[in-house]
Amino acid sequence: MEKVTVIGAGSWGTAIAFVLAENGHDCLLWARRSDQSAEINENHTNKSYLPSISLPINLKATSDLEAAAMHSDTVIIAVPTKAIRDVCSELNAMAISPKLIVHVSKGIEPDSLKRISEMISEELDSSKTKAIVVLSGPSHAEEVVLRHPTTVTAASFDLEAAEKIQDLFMNHYFRVYTNPDIVGVEIGAALKNVIALAAGISDGLGYGDNAKAALITRGLAEISRLGVKMGANPLTFSGLTGLGDLIVTCTSVHSRNWKAGNMLGKGNSLDEVVSGMGMVIEGVRTAKAAHQLAAQHGVSMPLTEALYSILFEGIPPKQAVDQLMNRMKKQEVEDLFGNR
Amino acid sequence: MEKVTVIGAGSWGTAIAFVLAENGHDCLLWARRSDQSAEINENHTNKSYLPSISLPINLKATSDLEAAAMHSDTVIIAVPTKAIRDVCSELNAMAISPKLIVHVSKGIEPDSLKRISEMISEELDSSKTKAIVVLSGPSHAEEVVLRHPTTVTAASFDLEAAEKIQDLFMNHYFRVYTNPDIVGVEIGAALKNVIALAAGISDGLGYGDNAKAALITRGLAEISRLGVKMGANPLTFSGLTGLGDLIVTCTSVHSRNWKAGNMLGKGNSLDEVVSGMGMVIEGVRTAKAAHQLAAQHGVSMPLTEALYSILFEGIPPKQAVDQLMNRMKKQEVEDLFGNR
Repeated sequence: MEKVTVIGAGSWGTAIAFVLAENGHDCLLWARRSDQSAEINENHTNKSYLPSISLPINLKATSDLEAAAMHSDTVIIAVPTKAIRDVCSELNAMAISPKLIVHVSKGIEPDSLKRISEMISEELDSSKTKAIVVLSGPSHAEEVVLRHPTTVTAASFDLEAAEKIQDLFMNHYFRVYTNPDIVGVEIGAALKNVIALAAGISDGLGYGDNAKAALITRGLAEISRLGVKMGANPLTFSGLTGLGDLIVTCTSVHSRNWKAGNMLGKGNSLDEVVSGMGMVIEGVRTAKAAHQLAAQHGVSMPLTEALYSILFEGIPPKQAVDQLMNRMKKQEVEDLFGNR
Repeated sequence: MEKVTVIGAGSWGTAIAFVLAENGHDCLLWARRSDQSAEINENHTNKSYLPSISLPINLKATSDLEAAAMHSDTVIIAVPTKAIRDVCSELNAMAISPKLIVHVSKGIEPDSLKRISEMISEELDSSKTKAIVVLSGPSHAEEVVLRHPTTVTAASFDLEAAEKIQDLFMNHYFRVYTNPDIVGVEIGAALKNVIALAAGISDGLGYGDNAKAALITRGLAEISRLGVKMGANPLTFSGLTGLGDLIVTCTSVHSRNWKAGNMLGKGNSLDEVVSGMGMVIEGVRTAKAAHQLAAQHGVSMPLTEALYSILFEGIPPKQAVDQLMNRMKKQEVEDLFGNR
């Protein structure tokens, strides 16, 4: 049994805490709202995020961030991407021992072009960080708490830290691989949302499964091209955190980014889509970051550029997608993968 | 304008002929039944296979195989895999000029372990063959005849022949890449049906999107491992004929192999599934061939083996899939891709 802290009681943070508590660990879950932590402690539910799920009785919650941080030396941050820096700076202000930090977020910060682990190591005092691990892969929270088989990857430059996280989580329905390639894992996780937007647009235009499969294929190829330039192992993109997560995100009608793309394809403006959904669409921010990364690294990313032109330059979706489909070189391997 | 022959008037053969005729080519489509060729010539429909579609008026049909073969020097064979050898031996008996042969079939012959192009070159006199090309990729016939954007690959050892096929087909909704890696294209096309059966089983067991994404990811990795041993370019499996076609087949409820797997996962026996569907389930034959290929080339293919044990050794689907999910090494890249 280990002590573990999970910061953030949304659906994924709660699902992660569910697995850890089921594995017998002493897990403390931090919720921003005290009524939510009370609900978890008293009723063993978190109805706003995981309706009709009973949480393990040994799972405890708090809305006191310092108490959560003091609870253990393994801290899993499960807050939205744009809250990451805030949480880190709150942790900085505390007199806490060095932590093994795990994050489960998917995104790249526009302008700074930092990956999540880079944001964390930039923000959090090195005296407070033992190692940073990312946990990522195809994993709907709703399926994990039903104990459906789920397979994810723990990635870190510090393979021992990744293995520790693997040991904490591993059980018969939640399988964890390790991968030393944190760059590839974070790039794949972030950029799949860009492809999901494009796939949604194609579906919204009524283009069907053939077109969507082509978009996903080209999309993964360009993510991989960029990732390799950024130092990633190309094989990571063919793994769970690349291909696996991409498939789930592009083919599930529950995916928020696919849904937003679908509305765009049906003729809604970006403003209408954003206000209609009432929540952050991560792929929109990431499309901007990906567009900037492509320029910085000199990588051809036609799908990203097509999406960027739709989102930020007012190009009609049909025009952008048709141009994308018609822009091809003659040879597949050369076009998709360039000179490897 | 070129003369082209298409042999086989099922849904895919008809869709291919549709594209060629729309591109202005003089295309003659061979149908086994004379009432079917009469329907195409007189009503410009093929209602058994593509209901509610009007075929181009310039598309002609015949049920005379020799007339079809005499019509042109480019012959596209679009018959079921198990009819390939018969068609070739019928062509052999004719006094015909050498043909550029294109096939669009997906499978590997059990026991002989031949790819389709190998079956053709084995069966058809070399004096009757100029080159062999395979046309493959994510392409539901029903979407092609609605002119939805579709992207496929023409592969051949003879790149000039592949480029000729590319030129014949290319238009604004039907895009053709070339790829010299015919081995990789044929292996990917055949083995995706094995993964689709497994994905259907997982869905039939109610395991959800996380598990299916993991299966597809592992499945593509093991196809790729086998293909590389057989001389394929690993990048081909990340392209349209590998990943692209796999996505369509595993996520579309219209896929026959997925459907068969789904019924197996719900507890039906293989006999019940086969008789219930009343047609060939290509993935069942291919699973046997893949099992044999894995042994021949000494490649670890745990997903194929799990499926084989379900289909041919009476192992319950749940037991086989659970064992598969639980069998993992610690590191992802090493487990999925071995020592590349």
